[in-house]
Amino acid sequence: MKPETLLYEGKAKQLFLTEDPAIVRVRYKDAATAFNGEKKATLAGKGVLNNRISAFFFQLLREQGIANHFIKEISPIEQWVKKVAIIPLEVVVRNVAAGSLSKRLGLTEGSPLRHPVIELYLKDDALGDPLINEDHISVLEIATVAQLTEMKGTALKVNEVLRNFLAQKNILLVDFKLEFGVDDSGDVMLADEISPDTCRFWDMATGNRMDKDRFRRDLGNVIEAYEEIWNRLGGREDV
Amino acid sequence: MKPETLLYEGKAKQLFLTEDPAIVRVRYKDAATAFNGEKKATLAGKGVLNNRISAFFFQLLREQGIANHFIKEISPIEQWVKKVAIIPLEVVVRNVAAGSLSKRLGLTEGSPLRHPVIELYLKDDALGDPLINEDHISVLEIATVAQLTEMKGTALKVNEVLRNFLAQKNILLVDFKLEFGVDDSGDVMLADEISPDTCRFWDMATGNRMDKDRFRRDLGNVIEAYEEIWNRLGGREDV
Repeated sequence: MKPETLLYEGKAKQLFLTEDPAIVRVRYKDAATAFNGEKKATLAGKGVLNNRISAFFFQLLREQGIANHFIKEISPIEQWVKKVAIIPLEVVVRNVAAGSLSKRLGLTEGSPLRHPVIELYLKDDALGDPLINEDHISVLEIATVAQLTEMKGTALKVNEVLRNFLAQKNILLVDFKLEFGVDDSGDVMLADEISPDTCRFWDMATGNRMDKDRFRRDLGNVIEAYEEIWNRLGGREDV
Repeated sequence: MKPETLLYEGKAKQLFLTEDPAIVRVRYKDAATAFNGEKKATLAGKGVLNNRISAFFFQLLREQGIANHFIKEISPIEQWVKKVAIIPLEVVVRNVAAGSLSKRLGLTEGSPLRHPVIELYLKDDALGDPLINEDHISVLEIATVAQLTEMKGTALKVNEVLRNFLAQKNILLVDFKLEFGVDDSGDVMLADEISPDTCRFWDMATGNRMDKDRFRRDLGNVIEAYEEIWNRLGGREDV
């Protein structure tokens, strides 16, 4: 067996080269981090769940016409994805006030927003991933106006698809973060992951949180909540 | 003499009713504040200088076709302005990285920006005047899309006029903050003040700061710098 070539290691995932230069292998780690890496833990089973949940959402989105980097699952904690150059932006879509939006605007958590709100954050740990606007993105030459328009349009489509799908599972899609990449032909496509690490999922009946806020806020039963999401998506029980 | 009716008191100005309901009297105070009011001082002469400098800029902008609330100076520290309902936004235009932009994006102070950058901040002391985007403004119903488009267009025009004018006086217009109001007919117009309290002015030759950063950063000679601005604008020496 040839040694692995690590391309990139993030807080929750590792990316490895494959024999095909257009394909990257993603390994989901059991690591949980919050507050820009200040809070850390290992949560056994998180890698398996996020690999499966993310694969599930990427397949659902592709069926709905939303191009993304996902190719296929290759192990319980690994998936192949198309190799792209990640645009260093976090594209956040919000339906309900929570987290940093509540703090920024002084809105009670759980307040519905009149329409989806898109926020753009610069992916830069040293700067604390600051909120930025389109003029900032332009002077930093992070993305073109056309790329930004496409990312925002896709983000709203993802929101429509996921929100409607999750509502049938009694899950409220409060907000989520997307990342996009550019492939070798210059096409922008949805990348990274879509999981309870990157979304806020609330039980529609009880308001119970089923996402990384359980870890951030020490609410307990983190893995149980991720498993509940996987089960409601129709996943097998044997994770 | 009838008693004054105070309409509003801000950190650096007081607004009084006049006998004409469409006109407000603004009195510029000698107070200097920074960091959301945490740092405070009284700087004798600041009120006179900011009243005169602000009046000067508003007249210059009107000559260049930019509508604003200024009517006339009525004393060394007072001016009449049109009564408007202030839209609770700070519209910031930046030509060169400085202050919070340098911190947010990790840019060295003094780095020129490829094009002017507009930032929108929510005027809310309790929230610390946070940076917000147009989706936030829409869900909070702070301004309509049309009003926002007009404010941003006007802000860029103000930048062109002031930057070119100040360059002739050997002053670099680094950045500035504008506020807008809505009058009784529903028209948006430039309001508030334009002074060394609300702009960053750097000497073009030396990079010397001639604005409120001298107070914020304890650089000394605050009033002398404001006087220098007034003198370069062609003001009288006897302030």
